[in-house]
Amino acid sequence: MCSTGLRMFFNPSSIAIVGVSDNPKKVGNLVAKNLIAQGYESPIYFINPKYKTLFEKRVFAKLSDVGQSIDLVVLAVPVDIALGYLDEIKAVGTKNIVIFAAGFKETSTEGEKKEKLLKEKAGAYGFNILGPNCIGFINTDKKINTTFLRDICPAGNIGFVSQSGALGSLMVDSLVNHKNLGFSYFVSLGNKTIVDETDVLEFLADDPKTKVIAMYLEDVKDGDRFKQILKKTTQKKPVVVLKSGVTAEGSQAAISHTGSMMGNDQIYQAVFDQCGAIRAESFSEFMTLLKLFSFDRIPFSKNTLILSNAGGVGVLLTDELVKQKLSLITITEEVKQNIIQSMGGDKISLHNPIDLLGDARAFDYEQAIKSTIKEKEIGSVVILLTPQANTEIPETASVIARAQAGFDRPIYPIFMGEKSVGNPHLFFEEKNIASFSTYDFLPKALAKIIAYKKYLGLPEQVFPTDNQGDSGEIGRTILSGRGKSFLNLVDSMEVIERSGIPVENLYMAANMSDLASKVKNINYPVVLKIASEKITHKTEVQGVIADIRDDEGLKTAYDHLCQISQGKEVLLQKMVKGHELIVGAKRDSVFGIMVMVGLGGIYTEVIKEAVSFNYPFSNDYFCQIIEKTKLLPFIKGFRGSYPLDTDKLYRIMFRIGQLLYKHPQIKEVDINPLMLVEGNLVAVDGRIVLL
Amino acid sequence: MCSTGLRMFFNPSSIAIVGVSDNPKKVGNLVAKNLIAQGYESPIYFINPKYKTLFEKRVFAKLSDVGQSIDLVVLAVPVDIALGYLDEIKAVGTKNIVIFAAGFKETSTEGEKKEKLLKEKAGAYGFNILGPNCIGFINTDKKINTTFLRDICPAGNIGFVSQSGALGSLMVDSLVNHKNLGFSYFVSLGNKTIVDETDVLEFLADDPKTKVIAMYLEDVKDGDRFKQILKKTTQKKPVVVLKSGVTAEGSQAAISHTGSMMGNDQIYQAVFDQCGAIRAESFSEFMTLLKLFSFDRIPFSKNTLILSNAGGVGVLLTDELVKQKLSLITITEEVKQNIIQSMGGDKISLHNPIDLLGDARAFDYEQAIKSTIKEKEIGSVVILLTPQANTEIPETASVIARAQAGFDRPIYPIFMGEKSVGNPHLFFEEKNIASFSTYDFLPKALAKIIAYKKYLGLPEQVFPTDNQGDSGEIGRTILSGRGKSFLNLVDSMEVIERSGIPVENLYMAANMSDLASKVKNINYPVVLKIASEKITHKTEVQGVIADIRDDEGLKTAYDHLCQISQGKEVLLQKMVKGHELIVGAKRDSVFGIMVMVGLGGIYTEVIKEAVSFNYPFSNDYFCQIIEKTKLLPFIKGFRGSYPLDTDKLYRIMFRIGQLLYKHPQIKEVDINPLMLVEGNLVAVDGRIVLL
Repeated sequence: MCSTGLRMFFNPSSIAIVGVSDNPKKVGNLVAKNLIAQGYESPIYFINPKYKTLFEKRVFAKLSDVGQSIDLVVLAVPVDIALGYLDEIKAVGTKNIVIFAAGFKETSTEGEKKEKLLKEKAGAYGFNILGPNCIGFINTDKKINTTFLRDICPAGNIGFVSQSGALGSLMVDSLVNHKNLGFSYFVSLGNKTIVDETDVLEFLADDPKTKVIAMYLEDVKDGDRFKQILKKTTQKKPVVVLKSGVTAEGSQAAISHTGSMMGNDQIYQAVFDQCGAIRAESFSEFMTLLKLFSFDRIPFSKNTLILSNAGGVGVLLTDELVKQKLSLITITEEVKQNIIQSMGGDKISLHNPIDLLGDARAFDYEQAIKSTIKEKEIGSVVILLTPQANTEIPETASVIARAQAGFDRPIYPIFMGEKSVGNPHLFFEEKNIASFSTYDFLPKALAKIIAYKKYLGLPEQVFPTDNQGDSGEIGRTILSGRGKSFLNLVDSMEVIERSGIPVENLYMAANMSDLASKVKNINYPVVLKIASEKITHKTEVQGVIADIRDDEGLKTAYDHLCQISQGKEVLLQKMVKGHELIVGAKRDSVFGIMVMVGLGGIYTEVIKEAVSFNYPFSNDYFCQIIEKTKLLPFIKGFRGSYPLDTDKLYRIMFRIGQLLYKHPQIKEVDINPLMLVEGNLVAVDGRIVLL
Repeated sequence: MCSTGLRMFFNPSSIAIVGVSDNPKKVGNLVAKNLIAQGYESPIYFINPKYKTLFEKRVFAKLSDVGQSIDLVVLAVPVDIALGYLDEIKAVGTKNIVIFAAGFKETSTEGEKKEKLLKEKAGAYGFNILGPNCIGFINTDKKINTTFLRDICPAGNIGFVSQSGALGSLMVDSLVNHKNLGFSYFVSLGNKTIVDETDVLEFLADDPKTKVIAMYLEDVKDGDRFKQILKKTTQKKPVVVLKSGVTAEGSQAAISHTGSMMGNDQIYQAVFDQCGAIRAESFSEFMTLLKLFSFDRIPFSKNTLILSNAGGVGVLLTDELVKQKLSLITITEEVKQNIIQSMGGDKISLHNPIDLLGDARAFDYEQAIKSTIKEKEIGSVVILLTPQANTEIPETASVIARAQAGFDRPIYPIFMGEKSVGNPHLFFEEKNIASFSTYDFLPKALAKIIAYKKYLGLPEQVFPTDNQGDSGEIGRTILSGRGKSFLNLVDSMEVIERSGIPVENLYMAANMSDLASKVKNINYPVVLKIASEKITHKTEVQGVIADIRDDEGLKTAYDHLCQISQGKEVLLQKMVKGHELIVGAKRDSVFGIMVMVGLGGIYTEVIKEAVSFNYPFSNDYFCQIIEKTKLLPFIKGFRGSYPLDTDKLYRIMFRIGQLLYKHPQIKEVDINPLMLVEGNLVAVDGRIVLL
């Protein structure tokens, strides 16, 4: 659905509610009261044959009785009545419909049929439908509330899309008592039969009232469109996503390492990262991120300054900041002198975190803030307050508010405790200051915002144009595997090589004398591999014998492999030594081609350290991500080893992605190991899984 | 200090406050008011020559004017006056003193001198002193409050020891408005000149009013005594520790891997684990653990049942539980039938987490609870409530309270939201039900409690009695390194072998012909190592040449090493292939001998996966911990490799610990790699660092 269509949908000039009721427990009652209470100023029409008037308004028996144009119909009726109403809605010429009813695909096969019918009719009649199984939407600017939430929705600059009505309801309840925090739009998606998350995202991206977009997702309907719109949107405004189902990955057995290492949640994470969305790990972190963006209190950098009247809590917070790779700025000599002059230097610690001691008054906070915020390198300031005997709580809040008013970088007050501290947040919120009552969620939120800023600094995406790979030959080789679930090692390696990735040559030896003569050409040390097509994990059956150095070893190895495979053929390769990586790619049903790299060899399964990318991805982005992984020591080089050239690695990974892109018959590719040998990368073993 | 001494200290029959004041901002005023307000019923004597009466009580000019026996003196006076008072206290015969004053060792070298004087006088006069630089203590049972906190301390069963007064103050403020949650004792330690954390721990261990011990620590004074008392205490009651300084590890360069992999915080963590203490990672988690223990709502097992009126939040919580290795119980067919009969099965999901849908009333919660808690395998139940249109909040709370009253396993209500939910916790607390307003901290807390229960199930500690190791010869070899900072490879390996650890023999070859003849004895493949004593990280200078298979390779390798070392000697070893581990030990200044094991080889630095133990440690404990690490795949065996025998590994680690125990000249030992070869472990390279 197009974004213009949604503008009309979310800004109707008249609304009809079908199924309005006088029973205060029914949605038809709640939605009518909410729409009136929110203050909607355009015509509202109530429909229900049972009533004549409700809420001091006339109630029509049917839609056609209204006799005026109706921009939006809200169906507050059960599933079958809702379905029955579609023809009448068509008759009065309305295109936009909200459907609350449950009982569609989320319940049973019977419900699935009903949803199919709904979709067909919507298509035939040109309907835009929000829901079914949703709780409606709110546009605070136009005072439209078509939900049955228990509260009137607070207005603000957060555009919120939720795949769960209950979670949306929780969020409204959590914000309604706050100041300056609220929604531009609240949209409950329900079953997403017509309108989906991407439609609303696209609409909110261009909505001037929306400063930050919040999404609660359980899945994504159209992965390609979602990626495209999300990537565009995050360039304009932040998108904070809460996505459940981290551990609900299903238990399908994967044939390849790549398959097992890129689970459903890793793929969602990779797509969010690559499109610049910020993923919150919990509801509390979600709310923290939204508050920071809504108030536009964004850290300038990772350099943090902490002031605290409880030294211990200052150190606990420092621990969390450092865990998140934020840093504490060093107080310069000049500023130390400032502090000593204004506060008496023997009293407080001059190291960050600055401990103002338990008896700090508002005046002490003020002096400390004034002295320290002269540090040029400050990215943000965290001010911790705990209630001690003489702590001046409202006075300190005022001191902080005054300091923030004259300071361009954000100050985050964290006022801990319960009884004495009360609720200082309303005071801070009045001034658009992002304050908190615990230090638990801020460090991670700050780290994620800094990563987002870094993401925004990436140059425009460029992809390699050298169209590597001999597509025709690759295609023919793949066809040789027709009917099988994967290509044998020889074919797999051929495809990998033809796609432009350096490989270590593999030779088929028909018998011992053939083997001996082939070894003469490549010289010892060599590796022998079992040639059987039936064995997937060769090392498990000891089907790989590495580092054979002489004729005697060769003979023993050959005999051993023949015994396992019950045949005479073996595969021969020159022995390669170096660090082992694994790279691979797989096709995801939602997001398309995913490419990953991780630590390889025997550690593949021990460590399970891997990072995924959605194809295509730029070299700049790749480098930004790869440096946060455990591959970093390889990139830097350690203990005298050659450093890993990320450019070479990027090109290999890009080509694997390209291989899947060009050849839709390929389901998965594993290169394991990809050896790092004196700065070069070479594929030593590989497997291609077919669809 | 002995625990009997503290019983007297914390239960005085009369208290004198020196420095009582009418200025409401002075501690001498606050402490007097607190002691009266808490309701202390025994004699209180106020001392200050400036006043005649205060708080309707006579004020004495000096202690000796009191003329009655005084059990405890609280010095609410500045540092120098406090020091000056000690003689007068001795004169009146009082032994127990609380000192608030700052200005001791925490400030300056001048302050250090004052602390030294205080300690000397305390020793000479037989004083027990709490502080200085503390905020006093509270004994709620005897209504004693010698603190200057802003609130009267709530009574309860938490015994709290804090190294930070500010953090203690925060905790009191966080609990004072709650029900049934509070302290048996609150003790602020300050500088720990005389009374330290272990003294108070030992006292609380035997205190019948204390059900759970809470500690905030920044360091530990006497590591050996702390370990001993802590281990005893956790067998009697849970000890929850909040310890700051995770990242403040100092930056001393470590010579050995072991040194660099066991930082200060890892050592504290290992000691807490090994003594059965539960470490909280944040203040919020600390409070969550204390609530669970204080109300005695301990999960029976990791099998969790979730009921929720918000499906999305149920899945988010599930993610967290699974991350913490808790599991969701499977609903049996019988119980499913129960639910269908009582609630209508088509309405709710019959899988755990059970989604009661947004319109769930108190009745629906009740039916669902009644049906599902029949599951025999339930370890605990989490009931999520979010405020939806028709949610019945107090009614649902009552339903939960009734269910908990008739159910032996804990039910944890999590009521999320702000406006509508209000504060249901007071209602739950009245009934000793552990309720929460967010799901953020519960999963980790439950996982830690389950680990504690598993710890308590360990058999009594037994240590190996086979006294391996030829101490005399070891001692002589160590002496050969006198004056050096570490033993050379040959000596290191000799010491390791003599301590009872299998090693791969190492041969010194004086020149090429000597080398050639020695290789004949052990056969190819072999390894050559540089013999220079100056090189610490041999691989960095390519001082190790592995897997030499023939005479030609031997000659090349020999020449190469001679060139690097500028000598003719090299070390020869038979080539060993397998999985690489690292084990090591070091001497910690607080806790003594620490032993560690991790992934070895080149991955030592890439992965940094290691786990530490305080010597001595039992095999049972070792196995319980090791199975939670990334060594697990080795223990289970993977891809056809022999499994790692934990018994063999334990014995090696125990012997390394024993080596340091018997030989105090040894500072650190590294065995890297310890090779896992077909189920056997053999030390291939090692280093011994001397003190």
